[in-house]
Amino acid sequence: MIIVMKESATLAELGKVISTLEERGFSPRPNHGGKSTVIGIMEAKPGDLTGLDELPGVEQISPVNSSFKMVSRDYKSEATTIKAGGVVIGGGEFVVMAGPCGVESEEQLLSTARMVAQNGGRVLRGGAYKPRTSPYSFQGLREEGLKILAQAREETGLPIITEVISPELVPLVARYSDILQVGARNMQNYALLEALGQLRKPVLLKRGLMSTIEEMLLAAEYLMSGGNTQVMLCERGIRTFEKATRNTLDLSAVSVIKRASHLPVIVDPSHAVGHVDYVADMCRASVASGADGIIIETHPRPEEALSDGQQSLTFDAFAELMVSLRPIAAAMGRTMAGG
Amino acid sequence: MIIVMKESATLAELGKVISTLEERGFSPRPNHGGKSTVIGIMEAKPGDLTGLDELPGVEQISPVNSSFKMVSRDYKSEATTIKAGGVVIGGGEFVVMAGPCGVESEEQLLSTARMVAQNGGRVLRGGAYKPRTSPYSFQGLREEGLKILAQAREETGLPIITEVISPELVPLVARYSDILQVGARNMQNYALLEALGQLRKPVLLKRGLMSTIEEMLLAAEYLMSGGNTQVMLCERGIRTFEKATRNTLDLSAVSVIKRASHLPVIVDPSHAVGHVDYVADMCRASVASGADGIIIETHPRPEEALSDGQQSLTFDAFAELMVSLRPIAAAMGRTMAGG
Amino acid sequence: MIIVMKESATLAELGKVISTLEERGFSPRPNHGGKSTVIGIMEAKPGDLTGLDELPGVEQISPVNSSFKMVSRDYKSEATTIKAGGVVIGGGEFVVMAGPCGVESEEQLLSTARMVAQNGGRVLRGGAYKPRTSPYSFQGLREEGLKILAQAREETGLPIITEVISPELVPLVARYSDILQVGARNMQNYALLEALGQLRKPVLLKRGLMSTIEEMLLAAEYLMSGGNTQVMLCERGIRTFEKATRNTLDLSAVSVIKRASHLPVIVDPSHAVGHVDYVADMCRASVASGADGIIIETHPRPEEALSDGQQSLTFDAFAELMVSLRPIAAAMGRTMAGG
Amino acid sequence: MIIVMKESATLAELGKVISTLEERGFSPRPNHGGKSTVIGIMEAKPGDLTGLDELPGVEQISPVNSSFKMVSRDYKSEATTIKAGGVVIGGGEFVVMAGPCGVESEEQLLSTARMVAQNGGRVLRGGAYKPRTSPYSFQGLREEGLKILAQAREETGLPIITEVISPELVPLVARYSDILQVGARNMQNYALLEALGQLRKPVLLKRGLMSTIEEMLLAAEYLMSGGNTQVMLCERGIRTFEKATRNTLDLSAVSVIKRASHLPVIVDPSHAVGHVDYVADMCRASVASGADGIIIETHPRPEEALSDGQQSLTFDAFAELMVSLRPIAAAMGRTMAGG
Repeated sequence: MIIVMKESATLAELGKVISTLEERGFSPRPNHGGKSTVIGIMEAKPGDLTGLDELPGVEQISPVNSSFKMVSRDYKSEATTIKAGGVVIGGGEFVVMAGPCGVESEEQLLSTARMVAQNGGRVLRGGAYKPRTSPYSFQGLREEGLKILAQAREETGLPIITEVISPELVPLVARYSDILQVGARNMQNYALLEALGQLRKPVLLKRGLMSTIEEMLLAAEYLMSGGNTQVMLCERGIRTFEKATRNTLDLSAVSVIKRASHLPVIVDPSHAVGHVDYVADMCRASVASGADGIIIETHPRPEEALSDGQQSLTFDAFAELMVSLRPIAAAMGRTMAGG
Repeated sequence: MIIVMKESATLAELGKVISTLEERGFSPRPNHGGKSTVIGIMEAKPGDLTGLDELPGVEQISPVNSSFKMVSRDYKSEATTIKAGGVVIGGGEFVVMAGPCGVESEEQLLSTARMVAQNGGRVLRGGAYKPRTSPYSFQGLREEGLKILAQAREETGLPIITEVISPELVPLVARYSDILQVGARNMQNYALLEALGQLRKPVLLKRGLMSTIEEMLLAAEYLMSGGNTQVMLCERGIRTFEKATRNTLDLSAVSVIKRASHLPVIVDPSHAVGHVDYVADMCRASVASGADGIIIETHPRPEEALSDGQQSLTFDAFAELMVSLRPIAAAMGRTMAGG
Repeated sequence: MIIVMKESATLAELGKVISTLEERGFSPRPNHGGKSTVIGIMEAKPGDLTGLDELPGVEQISPVNSSFKMVSRDYKSEATTIKAGGVVIGGGEFVVMAGPCGVESEEQLLSTARMVAQNGGRVLRGGAYKPRTSPYSFQGLREEGLKILAQAREETGLPIITEVISPELVPLVARYSDILQVGARNMQNYALLEALGQLRKPVLLKRGLMSTIEEMLLAAEYLMSGGNTQVMLCERGIRTFEKATRNTLDLSAVSVIKRASHLPVIVDPSHAVGHVDYVADMCRASVASGADGIIIETHPRPEEALSDGQQSLTFDAFAELMVSLRPIAAAMGRTMAGG
Repeated sequence: MIIVMKESATLAELGKVISTLEERGFSPRPNHGGKSTVIGIMEAKPGDLTGLDELPGVEQISPVNSSFKMVSRDYKSEATTIKAGGVVIGGGEFVVMAGPCGVESEEQLLSTARMVAQNGGRVLRGGAYKPRTSPYSFQGLREEGLKILAQAREETGLPIITEVISPELVPLVARYSDILQVGARNMQNYALLEALGQLRKPVLLKRGLMSTIEEMLLAAEYLMSGGNTQVMLCERGIRTFEKATRNTLDLSAVSVIKRASHLPVIVDPSHAVGHVDYVADMCRASVASGADGIIIETHPRPEEALSDGQQSLTFDAFAELMVSLRPIAAAMGRTMAGG
């Protein structure tokens, strides 16, 4: 259920509503964004809120028409913006996050970071902990990788995003990283989502390979119901019968999520198509789809990358791509850094 | 196998190669487009062409590296352009085809045709024969519908595209229509493909719901191996587990096809997403994906449409969409009519 | 809508109901199978049948709760049995149909037919017209193949099943074959379904690779609404992300169809799994799933087959399989020939 | 790489091979099952084992022909059997595991446990920790549920299987449960797999909704490479376009896994089909597919279940099912308890 307050309601009236709810055993979470203040009451049944609509300042009480609540546009009509370092995601700027799949060495990451910054990239990506399908594959540099990422931020000013793969690692990764990423395979790792819900740092939640949009929104609800409102969603391709691309990029998900939710949407074309030949086309299509940003892979020597080399852009290809994105972003009414 | 002629080869030399091939029982089809003349020999095995590489004017003989041949970029490196009425598809213009799902009445179609023409649409779509999942659904106005389409062309000058659903109907539909459409359910109806291969009119081949990109290219090969070179391909969504949209629009297919084939690619966002809320976003993404055009549904009163009303744009929404497409087309280096 | 007659109704009363319906413009089709006589009225709306429930002998008038009608268990509660030659499909016998993917030669087919008959196979399969993904693949022996099939029936007594790929071929194939098969790629080729609906011979309708169970039942409705009641359905695997098998055999479809429809269900494990290693396991699972029969591929020399050799059983493997099926059929309360 | 020892090799010879490997930095794991002793060396490259083939008792050194190693039939040709309580899984008995989706109360679980035991069920299932798509759904009784499970084992003698959802919970769940289950959503939760790999208790690994068979085998490799050899695999349906059933049961996976791996395979028809109407058919098909057992849901009052009621069998339906399974198991050469 959500309680919508009048625009003219006073803080005292709001306080009364909140204390009444607390007396009834609820933990009310007022949301002040958008056109009005809304209080979401999880798990309330119609009868639980009897009489509340008669308190001064209350506009109406209504059920949320979806299985997800706090992530819904019904709950918060205004688009959420998220700050990481000096970058605002979900606002007027189309944000490009880029970097290697995995952090492999100081030289590799720093050269990439400098190139990304020079060409208008705004956030540096790089995996320190790599969840790998086989136990015998490269598992990442772990804390050493986090340190190299922090060093690259120091030098270039780019905020960093990196993946966290288990609840125990959340405090460590949060200490180094500006945005914590939940990978596709962990989208429904609820222990991890609960740990991240306690955090007060931005989280990028990647869609599972076989997850519906609704399931992704419900996973985001785990984060938000824990109290972390800095959530962004990432479309990264779903598994289908088509094998010409690694996965099938579902760009219509951007359109669907933007109508259903107030959270920012990022697209990851690199993992979706899985081959460098198709990445630039899908980056351009992502801008025009209405996404708030993209996250892509670039590597100084893709052919030597320890993971995902076949989908990583060379530095030249990245620079060329950025040039081609700007006029499309402008056509969509968005700014882009650099250029 | 393909035989590549030298740029300096004379017609006499070409003639000699052709007659030699005919003596060996082949039906050679020289292709003069692109940088060089190429002769595709279907079903030839390496030994069949022994000695041919020694004929004057022959540059080289090589296998085509794919199960499709005439549709391949290897066979013809230059992009194919197709003319329908005064419209060129596959060239520098981004072409919008629009109209109702089914032709329902003269009033409905003519009012739509006028609106489409005024707003920069270039081809008029409308189904006269409707393949329907249930035998009890509206099956189309049939020949009466074709006549109304021709009348709309007469009045507005827009060339028309309409679906043909069986081999027997090919002559009739070809008499009225500028472009013949093969629907998704008929993509592997080989009897139909063979009949259309005999035609010398443009064909738009829609991807089957369950078809891989390779299977679509092989279906196009049926058309081209019959001698019809005026083929364009249409991505219209594939069937996946995700049900928030009717199908999943696979925009990366545009990128994959453009690299693998010389044929123009059109996107049909209306059937892919199946709901009007998401159509405009996916039209914009289609332009930026590198497609040569889109085909979309619009209806004077979508809520009264006999089929697919939920995915048809109102006239106002269509006009608004067209305005938003132009700057993206410009950013992609494409022109668009009107504006 | 369906009109259910009382068990005690007389033929005169039935005649009155039918003539009343005809006066109102309907073409009533009484169905006398099962516990009661039922008249299905296609496309009727509730108001169209006003007053009919007051005619003598009418038990009740009710809507059919599904988009398919004549194929539904609501329309005919008793299981349909189909006779082909001396074989009854859909009754107490578990029926094995077997033979090569394509008819390649007299020797190949006759040796296979003899072996199938000796081991308890009841129907001979073999393709004379092959719908192939590539225009350059073996397309079948065509009428020559039909003649060889007829010859094999002559010699062994096995009724034959073969595929028909276009409406024009229906009369020719019907002249030779006991059961006509609609292939997966033609499941929604409505021109073909309409031609077969006019026939009065058994048809086996294969599920399309991408088709839902409901769509298959609606395709069967095309056949039945044309007047052909001798329809059986075939589960042959659907296209999914899993590539360890050619398709994913959806055995739960047997269970779903058996509850929704009165038509017999056959399983084709050969095309579903696509590899001989897994065929026998899935044949055994098919028996236990409640299917009425299976259709499988066997070839004297699988490694030399012109199509689908990798999924064809050797003669020894076929004989061994048949021995293993009998006790499972018995456990399911079914008989099997031979043994 | 795997090192295969001769059948005639002595323990002293084996010791020498092991110590040589340890000197070179490896942690050799000899496997004595099957026809021969095999030592798997993870991550070894061909050069690392130079000279080892000359040691006495070594038959040959060869690469494992798959990305998974210890789970492979190449590594261990004999089928693995797993003991839980007095029950042997993967041997000559077809094992039925049954119980409610979630433990809801002492009364509910104990009455179910008694009924399962009386009808020949061999393992009691019941979820104490429930991973739920929505944060607002019933999350299980947690440790209280584990205690009730232990009490039911006490009374009935049935070993118990229950799910563990995060690495921290492994010690607690292992204290109560005979078999630990990894749920579909956690199949690629590598932190959890690593924790379970350290355990020396049976683990049932469920296939992810979106996981290929190869990925499931690689997830099992995480468990085995940690040293836990008591692993069984569970097919529980994959996500496809078909929505008549909750998921699509992929019974051919049983056949594929049985050829590729030595581990036991269990089928979960309840979660695959998601509706009680189809569960019994798919249980019977599972027996005939060659699976080693099934795990199914039953509840005293399915309509009141807090989760998955629509797919839970009543007690009567369970008893009836068990009677129908026995002759099929016998036809497959398997025993079943009770009856």
